[in-house]
Amino acid sequence: MPKSHKLSRRRFVTTAMSAAAVSSLVVPEVFGRVAKSRPSAGATNLSDGSLTDAPPWKDQAIENLAKSPYAKLRQIPVHAVTIKTGFWGQRREINVSKSIPTMHDLLEANGRMNNFRRLAGKSDAAQSGPVFSDSDVYKWTEAVGFALQSGDLPDVRRMAEKAIDEVVAVQEPDGYLNTYYVEDRESLRMTPQTQSTGHELYNIGHMLQGSIAYYRATGDRKLLDAGIRFVNDFLLPNYGPAPKKPIVSGHPEIEMGLIELYRITGDKRQLELAGYILQGDERAKFPERRTIYMFSGTPFTARTKLEGHAVRAMYACCGATDYYMETGDAAYWKTLNTLWQDMVSTKMYVSGGVGSRSDGEAFGDAYELPNFRAYGESCAAIGNMMWNWRMLSATGDAKFTDVIERALYNGINSGMSLDGTLYCYRNPLAFDPSTGDKIRNPWYDVTCCPPNLERTFASLPGYFYSTSRDGIYLHLYDNSELDWHLEDGTGLKITQKANYPWDGEVEVAVTPAKPLDFIFHLRIPGWADTAQVSVNGKAVAGVKQGEYLPIERRWAAGDVIRLRMEMPPQVLEANPRVADDTGRVALQRGPLVYCMEGLDQPNGVELADVALDLGQKPASQFQSEYLKDMLGGMVILRHKGVAYQRPTSGNGLYSRYSGQPARTRQIPLTFIPYYAWANRQATEMQVWTPLSNA
Amino acid sequence: MPKSHKLSRRRFVTTAMSAAAVSSLVVPEVFGRVAKSRPSAGATNLSDGSLTDAPPWKDQAIENLAKSPYAKLRQIPVHAVTIKTGFWGQRREINVSKSIPTMHDLLEANGRMNNFRRLAGKSDAAQSGPVFSDSDVYKWTEAVGFALQSGDLPDVRRMAEKAIDEVVAVQEPDGYLNTYYVEDRESLRMTPQTQSTGHELYNIGHMLQGSIAYYRATGDRKLLDAGIRFVNDFLLPNYGPAPKKPIVSGHPEIEMGLIELYRITGDKRQLELAGYILQGDERAKFPERRTIYMFSGTPFTARTKLEGHAVRAMYACCGATDYYMETGDAAYWKTLNTLWQDMVSTKMYVSGGVGSRSDGEAFGDAYELPNFRAYGESCAAIGNMMWNWRMLSATGDAKFTDVIERALYNGINSGMSLDGTLYCYRNPLAFDPSTGDKIRNPWYDVTCCPPNLERTFASLPGYFYSTSRDGIYLHLYDNSELDWHLEDGTGLKITQKANYPWDGEVEVAVTPAKPLDFIFHLRIPGWADTAQVSVNGKAVAGVKQGEYLPIERRWAAGDVIRLRMEMPPQVLEANPRVADDTGRVALQRGPLVYCMEGLDQPNGVELADVALDLGQKPASQFQSEYLKDMLGGMVILRHKGVAYQRPTSGNGLYSRYSGQPARTRQIPLTFIPYYAWANRQATEMQVWTPLSNA
Repeated sequence: MPKSHKLSRRRFVTTAMSAAAVSSLVVPEVFGRVAKSRPSAGATNLSDGSLTDAPPWKDQAIENLAKSPYAKLRQIPVHAVTIKTGFWGQRREINVSKSIPTMHDLLEANGRMNNFRRLAGKSDAAQSGPVFSDSDVYKWTEAVGFALQSGDLPDVRRMAEKAIDEVVAVQEPDGYLNTYYVEDRESLRMTPQTQSTGHELYNIGHMLQGSIAYYRATGDRKLLDAGIRFVNDFLLPNYGPAPKKPIVSGHPEIEMGLIELYRITGDKRQLELAGYILQGDERAKFPERRTIYMFSGTPFTARTKLEGHAVRAMYACCGATDYYMETGDAAYWKTLNTLWQDMVSTKMYVSGGVGSRSDGEAFGDAYELPNFRAYGESCAAIGNMMWNWRMLSATGDAKFTDVIERALYNGINSGMSLDGTLYCYRNPLAFDPSTGDKIRNPWYDVTCCPPNLERTFASLPGYFYSTSRDGIYLHLYDNSELDWHLEDGTGLKITQKANYPWDGEVEVAVTPAKPLDFIFHLRIPGWADTAQVSVNGKAVAGVKQGEYLPIERRWAAGDVIRLRMEMPPQVLEANPRVADDTGRVALQRGPLVYCMEGLDQPNGVELADVALDLGQKPASQFQSEYLKDMLGGMVILRHKGVAYQRPTSGNGLYSRYSGQPARTRQIPLTFIPYYAWANRQATEMQVWTPLSNA
Repeated sequence: MPKSHKLSRRRFVTTAMSAAAVSSLVVPEVFGRVAKSRPSAGATNLSDGSLTDAPPWKDQAIENLAKSPYAKLRQIPVHAVTIKTGFWGQRREINVSKSIPTMHDLLEANGRMNNFRRLAGKSDAAQSGPVFSDSDVYKWTEAVGFALQSGDLPDVRRMAEKAIDEVVAVQEPDGYLNTYYVEDRESLRMTPQTQSTGHELYNIGHMLQGSIAYYRATGDRKLLDAGIRFVNDFLLPNYGPAPKKPIVSGHPEIEMGLIELYRITGDKRQLELAGYILQGDERAKFPERRTIYMFSGTPFTARTKLEGHAVRAMYACCGATDYYMETGDAAYWKTLNTLWQDMVSTKMYVSGGVGSRSDGEAFGDAYELPNFRAYGESCAAIGNMMWNWRMLSATGDAKFTDVIERALYNGINSGMSLDGTLYCYRNPLAFDPSTGDKIRNPWYDVTCCPPNLERTFASLPGYFYSTSRDGIYLHLYDNSELDWHLEDGTGLKITQKANYPWDGEVEVAVTPAKPLDFIFHLRIPGWADTAQVSVNGKAVAGVKQGEYLPIERRWAAGDVIRLRMEMPPQVLEANPRVADDTGRVALQRGPLVYCMEGLDQPNGVELADVALDLGQKPASQFQSEYLKDMLGGMVILRHKGVAYQRPTSGNGLYSRYSGQPARTRQIPLTFIPYYAWANRQATEMQVWTPLSNA
């Protein structure tokens, strides 16, 4: 249990919050009673101070696993890690200075807030946007919540407070809250068809997540109370197993929201409702095609593969993992591992993106990983990271961290332009602008991805470390400071100095409040063929790539771990069953997947006409160069390649196989990190490059 | 002009038709007047006998190009060619004995006929099937019409007569006819939205085609008159350029129907309406996305590439080519050639199938030709054949015949099971039954493909020859007899003896009614590397593959052309821009594309784990063997290959590129013609096979 830890750099604790708003929620009975009386925030705050077995709001992490019996790791609050200048610092600074504020303006400009105001009689605008438009507001609120956990942002906070006021103002007396199923559409509320397609519970799931992040930043329960009213007053009494009315989770999301709510309130009914939803209700019958697409409506534990809508599937897996961490249900654990293996063995892009098909935004068949046509929705890559984060919390197994890192640095990071104002919905692995496609846009009418990216970057500090009974886990590298404590309450500071992901040297200064025996679990990434670890200059044995290195000793202030990983460019090939990658290779350096953009190659050469010439010594002929002025600073790779003498677009579509090598000329090829593509001008891109026969 | 030609084998002329029903339609004025008075069939027949410049109904071909000023070739009536025992004879026999009758029963069982009966007060059944369900009936009627052109089929004819009676009984007084936009939906008729998605004019286009084929078989004008009433009474007075109401062709098809109707009636308004529809009407505004999908709604002549829904695009191109053949409009001709080049250079499967994407049943981007995920709708391959048939008629250029043959023998022929009762909607080029997909089905609720295949096989004799001013063109090879005449009226019989496509020797006996100078244009397929032609044993010089060999001489009874084409298995490679085919080859022998089915390979070997080992001498190591009991008789191919020592499904998804050849063992590989796949048991299939590195 925490004894004391300083939060001095979190200015908002003292400047932006009233003392009365600082509360912690303790026992379900109290909370349930409070909720029943439909309190306004502030009036219902409990007094802080007496420690309970749950941490106070301000010390709850992305997920509050403090009491989760089947979580091996406990998460660390976002505020406990400060990411300093560096790779993620740069991204996160833009996220709060540009992305979150401009998204607020876009939500306004596109009528998302007027949807609420209209119901309060404060706007004449017609309903705007698709059925899930409320969730855009909630996801943005969650981004603000995580951002405020790292420090005050008065302007952004004011925007969020106003939004929250406008949201809660239109909650109906019975707890229902939705801006679409109102007026003429009110009769459609919560019908099986609406549950299947109408996103009512998806919206509320995001509302719960958003309200919780905001509460954990500010102690402000206004939106959280509205969520509790929806759950406790509207949902629980009326929906669930017979004789209540059935629920189908048309777009999984509510499951995660309910379980995180349970982790605050301790109200088991919320957990049980999540379990009920995950198992589906036979009374709500849908065609198989639909239950595949929804990744819900049939028992989660009967699933054997990932299929259907990728974001739905990932969110369902997140909820199911959360459910496992609370219940230890072995059937869930078996299914989760089967699905995970299915994904990483047959359905995940090298970028960490998932969901191959535009048609249904869906998982494809095993090994169906087209590059040009890759869907790889930003939200699905985020869902993949969120799921692996939960699997990691359940196990402490580094294989999940490898997926987190792959998705985060590549398929997620590609989703937001480097200036923080344009977003990818799709994240293809090859691109040709002549098709007319525009890959980065400021706004989508289905604008799920932009605020999802924002909340992810805002929450990033929460992913750097976890605690365990025996010590601490370090998951991600970047210049950063941890100010937290071990599970026994001993204060612990950790300072990372790194130039990651450009460089594989990481210095980790470990400063416990007092000398103490514990295990420092240092992640060795799966990509790190050569990693050396020393403590205070003395080599540590037993380093294994793709595992956590358990360094057990008496740690004391002044101890320094040094991790040295070589970062040569690595050449990857895909399983031969991936038809789209036959004869092709991808490049990776450290955690970063690389790609070629057309504008970096010799003039007039089309990417379709080039091949990489590896000769006999893969990787030895790459040139790596750090260019500090290139797209915020990056290491680019160069290698010799070949190009067809004449553009192959002049060839016929089919010709007789000659067995003769094509006529080519040597050219230099240049590769940039995949996340940075499409940040300059419309140009071709590809991740998987053919190998020359030469 | 025809002087005399015998039709003795067409028994129905004397047995099934009353003399009064034998009519020919002459001048538009008369026909227009007749139509206005809403005649019943029979009452409005004109007397036959006096020859006009249009051939009588029974001598009209698939398309009546007798007066089309910009058609270089004239088509030959279906009845003039008798396909004997052989490759197509077998397929066509099953088509009339199995496919057409069972499809009739399925249309009944699935309520398609009850849709009409309901409106006549003869059925209580609810409306059944999608908005285009009427077209299923019309397309089936067209299949019957073509089948009857080859000889009487009393049972089938009775079915069609009954169906036609039930259709025309519910035509409304103003000419409108549709079983979906009735009762509650009547107010939606011909609104812009309904035109865009409701298939009203698509249905009528198929009704016109069906009625014309039936008329040309039987002289029975009942359905044709109903079509004319729709066009002349309902459409022409009310829809068209301002001040009439606008038309958008939501699914192109009406264009072809209108122009073929014009070719019977001579009523220029029908041609002009087709031209108006092809150019779109600015008053009917749709988002660009929609006009791309529809391949209509914007000027056809402004299009620069094939895109959107593949069947729509193909039918639009058919209509546009028809329009060109009547008008000679140079803008159309330019566009048609641009689009054709776009298709054959970047968007056509080696099977002749088109439309890569399931999503929107659409053309993909250039070189986007996935194999497993290929859509290749049967209807789109048929549309491709129909379009190329029109381009061939316009030009006499053999490059179009090569596409016809490729589509017909492969991507179309695959669409119907060999027993004639199961149909493919998709025609992928690789398949894995473990995905749960079932590729051949007796019925689809969207059942466009099955009757489309039936009408195509029924019409096949009409594709074998054309006449030109200077002689005759032979397009397709099979045991067959032509009994027709040259354009100057001289009778001409041609007998083909062949074992095509299994063997490349074709004997062509040419028997003009009298010795005559003309050119025999003998097609040399594009695939025929070594073709030798002799006439009466004497070699003919100038043979060029992919062209028509013009044999100019005085032809007389007893003349025999011998065409000898070697048919070695050929190894094809795709343009390197086709990412899905990188490192892979396809096999073709004669016009047939080959594939591997899993059940023909060594036990336990998955197709994903095999590669073809061509060694240094492509094609020389194939074994070809004719198996008469295999799936109706076929040449299969064998070649040595390799398989991975261990199934690659056990490998990870991504691994470090080693540059070392994989560990493999030699195995024999067996290939069957693509059209015959999925006729035994659920098993894997693939057309494009990786080449081994060995």
